[in-house]
Amino acid sequence: MSAHRQHTQVAIIGGGPAGLLLSHILQQNGIDSIVLERQSKDYVLARIRAGFLEAGTIKLLRDVGLGERMDREGLPKNGGAIAWQGKEGLYIDTAKWTGQQMMAYGQTAITEDLYAARERDGGHVINEARDVTLHDLTSDAPRVTYTKDGQTFEVTCTLVAGCDGFHGVSRQSIPTDVLRTFERAYPFGWLGIMAEVPPLKDLVYAYHEEGFALASQRNPMLSRYYVQCDINDAVENWSDDRFWEALLRRMPADVSAKITTGPSIEKSIAPLRSFVAEPMQYGRLYLAGDAAHIVPPTGAKGLNLAFSDVYYLSRGMIEYFNRRNDAHLSRYSKTALRRVWSAENFSWRMTQLLHAFPNEDPFTRRLQANTYDMLLSHEPMQQALAYEYVGLPFEG
Amino acid sequence: MSAHRQHTQVAIIGGGPAGLLLSHILQQNGIDSIVLERQSKDYVLARIRAGFLEAGTIKLLRDVGLGERMDREGLPKNGGAIAWQGKEGLYIDTAKWTGQQMMAYGQTAITEDLYAARERDGGHVINEARDVTLHDLTSDAPRVTYTKDGQTFEVTCTLVAGCDGFHGVSRQSIPTDVLRTFERAYPFGWLGIMAEVPPLKDLVYAYHEEGFALASQRNPMLSRYYVQCDINDAVENWSDDRFWEALLRRMPADVSAKITTGPSIEKSIAPLRSFVAEPMQYGRLYLAGDAAHIVPPTGAKGLNLAFSDVYYLSRGMIEYFNRRNDAHLSRYSKTALRRVWSAENFSWRMTQLLHAFPNEDPFTRRLQANTYDMLLSHEPMQQALAYEYVGLPFEG
Repeated sequence: MSAHRQHTQVAIIGGGPAGLLLSHILQQNGIDSIVLERQSKDYVLARIRAGFLEAGTIKLLRDVGLGERMDREGLPKNGGAIAWQGKEGLYIDTAKWTGQQMMAYGQTAITEDLYAARERDGGHVINEARDVTLHDLTSDAPRVTYTKDGQTFEVTCTLVAGCDGFHGVSRQSIPTDVLRTFERAYPFGWLGIMAEVPPLKDLVYAYHEEGFALASQRNPMLSRYYVQCDINDAVENWSDDRFWEALLRRMPADVSAKITTGPSIEKSIAPLRSFVAEPMQYGRLYLAGDAAHIVPPTGAKGLNLAFSDVYYLSRGMIEYFNRRNDAHLSRYSKTALRRVWSAENFSWRMTQLLHAFPNEDPFTRRLQANTYDMLLSHEPMQQALAYEYVGLPFEG
Repeated sequence: MSAHRQHTQVAIIGGGPAGLLLSHILQQNGIDSIVLERQSKDYVLARIRAGFLEAGTIKLLRDVGLGERMDREGLPKNGGAIAWQGKEGLYIDTAKWTGQQMMAYGQTAITEDLYAARERDGGHVINEARDVTLHDLTSDAPRVTYTKDGQTFEVTCTLVAGCDGFHGVSRQSIPTDVLRTFERAYPFGWLGIMAEVPPLKDLVYAYHEEGFALASQRNPMLSRYYVQCDINDAVENWSDDRFWEALLRRMPADVSAKITTGPSIEKSIAPLRSFVAEPMQYGRLYLAGDAAHIVPPTGAKGLNLAFSDVYYLSRGMIEYFNRRNDAHLSRYSKTALRRVWSAENFSWRMTQLLHAFPNEDPFTRRLQANTYDMLLSHEPMQQALAYEYVGLPFEG
């Protein structure tokens, strides 16, 4: 069986936000790419994900011409509130402490914008590409094979970008003896619901001895709420009533009074995980986003981190192809990992601060309460948290 | 056998820095006390302890007339340096970030100053008071009995201050069912030596994968150095040569080049411990300093915390006796514990940052390295650390 042959400069594995954004930026700089996505476009667009954008992400999207709808429909945010044991006290004011705003703008909308731009610009995105396999990654001529509609295709290319998420083939194509992984599991998950009711104006994180809770927004008529649940719990155990009762009990009374409840249109449990793979390069393959690292959602860093990876990777590829300079590309893994670990660190500390850890030792529990007390009472602590929350500068 | 009777307003158990300072401040406000110290004055003054004073401690000592020799002989410090894996990069600049200085002034000198002031002012300090026992703490008329030179004494009083350290009788006089304790042990100790050689100009903390090291100063011809060692290690295993070799290996080369080595005049291993007892009050007994809490020395908070306890406790007692107002005294435990937990939190984080933890999981090790990287690269992180290092304001 002979394969249909295709050639491109960069084969991008995965057509989620990271892969699409990379393809978009490369094309703006005259670099050709093919995006291979296992799922259909409809499937990709139906994925429900958060979308709380760091200042650097907002700037990046504007800089590459993807800010128009975001600026029209996204909700600028000056920070987020953290409640503690029924008391609403702390507001992490990123605008005050950093002069920068964040933006609530869903990942689904960003993916729509990216697909629209790819289609407008004639970008080469192949959906429902199955059996994707990477070949000869350590040679000068890597190849990617896949099947679609019963036919086999082979893409020859100069570089490969692995943007296919945690379960994708890219990271798994790196021999285990050169890949080092770091992981932390959590003894709880997030039970999330979506409801067509007006959301709160602000993001509210709540610690309660019964467990974490979070109020977030999708759009003016779509609310997203979460409560911490046991890692082994099941959605079937959580009626809408039980969910709303838990949420309202964990939020301060004056926050709960403003929450509009209603029937859920989606309900699911997500585990929390911290994961990093090092290095983020193997031969001609470069990993970006969830393919290389997972953060627990508490810090709202996952999408932002995928985009800072793409920023570093696109910069390196542009210099490589257009200026025959591989300085940035050869440092890509090191540069990206530095920011990855900062996001892992922040996400871990936010998770530790805001969740009820079963069987936690009493000394650690007291430190947890004191960390909140320190934030509440001392401005330099708020400033440092705001700085990390709004997102580290894309430097290095 | 009939006891010799004495009466005072406040019986102070323990004649270390906390007890002596409390007695001094009370007398300045016309309140009578008796200090009962188990050891001789010479023994107390021979104790070797650190002495890195927070800005609030410096102010307190000046405010109560104990700053003269400190200001003459102490070494003002603008912060401390943190080296990492042989690189000298970070200086925690308290002067720059907080506008406040710290002071290197040994606990031994402070204790000398306190004893001198007590003697000058006719303070009632009883050394070598043995078999100290507290009675009727929950009554209106508590009593303290002790023996000295074969005779039995009984002190009747209104209030009792427990300033007799971790191993003292005060905390042990509180029934275990009303006292809650929180503890963390560490799998390493600090091997410290004293040598009559000129010290470095600055305090230098060093993380090295082999273990922590610290350069500190006592006076222009007295150096104090530490290296992390195994908790089960013994001083006999550490010749001076072995100690200096470990220290110089763990410090950056340009720091090591400035270190003057020489024969040790003292060498000892101290375990590290975090400990808090709650509440810090039982009836008429109020705990202060090490009697209620221990911090690992990494944050240099132990003495400072004892003095902030004394600040809160003296304020409460002055209002109680002189204004018949028990508002501050009744909140003493709550007020003091808030600051205690902040110091425990800081001391734990500094300990975690700077030590090599045996068998630490790789994810945590990466977070440790990133925490240093964040400090090195981002000013808001330095500012927050400097704020805690220079010491929280005495508020509340």
